[in-house]
Amino acid sequence: AALGALKMEDYGRFLVLLASTLLVGFVSVILSLVWVFHYREGLSFFLCIFYFFSSETQFFPCVTEKGCCLKPSVAIIVYRLPWTWKCSKLLMKFIHAGLNTIAMILAIVAMVAAFDYHNADNIPNMYSLHSWIGLTALIFYSLQLVLGFAVFLLPFAPVYLRAVLMPIHVYSGLTIFATVIATALMGITEKLLFSLRNPSYSTSPPEATLVNCLGLLLVVFGSLILWMASRPHWKRPLEENTKVLRPIGGTPEGTEVESTMTNSGNADKSDLRANTEAARKQNLKFDEAGQRSTM
Amino acid sequence: AALGALKMEDYGRFLVLLASTLLVGFVSVILSLVWVFHYREGLSFFLCIFYFFSSETQFFPCVTEKGCCLKPSVAIIVYRLPWTWKCSKLLMKFIHAGLNTIAMILAIVAMVAAFDYHNADNIPNMYSLHSWIGLTALIFYSLQLVLGFAVFLLPFAPVYLRAVLMPIHVYSGLTIFATVIATALMGITEKLLFSLRNPSYSTSPPEATLVNCLGLLLVVFGSLILWMASRPHWKRPLEENTKVLRPIGGTPEGTEVESTMTNSGNADKSDLRANTEAARKQNLKFDEAGQRSTM
Repeated sequence: AALGALKMEDYGRFLVLLASTLLVGFVSVILSLVWVFHYREGLSFFLCIFYFFSSETQFFPCVTEKGCCLKPSVAIIVYRLPWTWKCSKLLMKFIHAGLNTIAMILAIVAMVAAFDYHNADNIPNMYSLHSWIGLTALIFYSLQLVLGFAVFLLPFAPVYLRAVLMPIHVYSGLTIFATVIATALMGITEKLLFSLRNPSYSTSPPEATLVNCLGLLLVVFGSLILWMASRPHWKRPLEENTKVLRPIGGTPEGTEVESTMTNSGNADKSDLRANTEAARKQNLKFDEAGQRSTM
Repeated sequence: AALGALKMEDYGRFLVLLASTLLVGFVSVILSLVWVFHYREGLSFFLCIFYFFSSETQFFPCVTEKGCCLKPSVAIIVYRLPWTWKCSKLLMKFIHAGLNTIAMILAIVAMVAAFDYHNADNIPNMYSLHSWIGLTALIFYSLQLVLGFAVFLLPFAPVYLRAVLMPIHVYSGLTIFATVIATALMGITEKLLFSLRNPSYSTSPPEATLVNCLGLLLVVFGSLILWMASRPHWKRPLEENTKVLRPIGGTPEGTEVESTMTNSGNADKSDLRANTEAARKQNLKFDEAGQRSTM
């Protein structure tokens, strides 16, 4: 009962954090829309959605922020949402991969828009640190997506490989996420220095204050996501917690097929069937290597 | 023996990573020195060391980079260095706290230098996103230092409080570290946009390429530090590994006094003396809460 109470309390804490994160994310979307539509020459929202590959000046930050920060952030914490724990792991993986694919497409569209905009105004491409780090992040993001798909979603990779690659997958996902936020902050800095001329950025006009607040909120948002994603006790429970209750040697069926496609956390399920002390130790070892070690 | 071999291999991997990190850090220091002394009007190295609170134009990036990124990075991984595991935990804590204090002082000196430089040239202070996020990071860094000192170094905090605060301490340390790197990248972007006029940044003169490489190296450096700091199997071993071999109830002496001042990992040592199954479980639980859960 005490454990149950603790879990409820912990669950409540998770929800409070999740709500705060959503609020911060929502406010930063509002701020970026105000920036784009009020301070910069207003595109209509319609245009923003349907012509986001157009080379309109202020569009780039709008797309990149939503594409690169918000979508992956949902993808990052999707396994942590307690009400999804009843869904099959495979479904959750599809959602995780799908959200990341959408974000990837938006990021590519945003980059094409940036190139178009530069070319239209005869501005050289790829000279700034913002573009270098942004492109690097995009390349690693693609690699992450392809490798993640091949290893964790397709059913071919051996369990051992998944156990070895899972901590790397988690670490690089979170590191790419942090790098993308840093890239957004550099983009904001560049944009403010280029666009705010009269009055200039250094005289702190309202636009500068608004966008600085947006930058700070992005840092807060990123920190909240990283906190939620790195707490082991908010992790999706291992599936053997329920499976191990079945008679040992019971034929695998139903979700079992799916769970052979899941991550390192389930890698030790077959060991668990043996249900010996050695298997338990092995389980802990695997668990540590594959799961607890995730950033 | 197999476990020993695995550990040796793992140890070798740690050393290779550590060497790469040192190399990347070393190259980025060289690049920043080349930037400051070759491209910007050259301060002598002597001046750089002894007058770093002077308000010289190009000095700011030099100090901030070394003060804010390199020092804390050593402080972050100091517990991970295997040849320090023979030293007492208390000594390592003093080194950790000392390095962070030096970094803190350098960061404050760098900020004062930035204010001086702005005031001398009649440039407004604290208007840019770089300055907002930099100041925020500095405030949190100070809080981290004071709280860390009060809770983990002074012997007054109860073991339970340490166990609760340790994951937060580790998380905020790493998050502040990442934020400081992002701040450095914004600072580099600003500096290049302001200083590179003829030829301009957008024409990619050699200086721009050099400093963009410096920025990329900072990202690589930060990623390597975060990887090393977040692998649980490279953690300093818990001290009860050796202590538990002593007869149960043996009088505490020598290093024992020190280890009552250590972190959550040792919080469960008294439990271990009881050496029951319940204590083992408690140990695992504590361990998970206090140690494995660190980012």
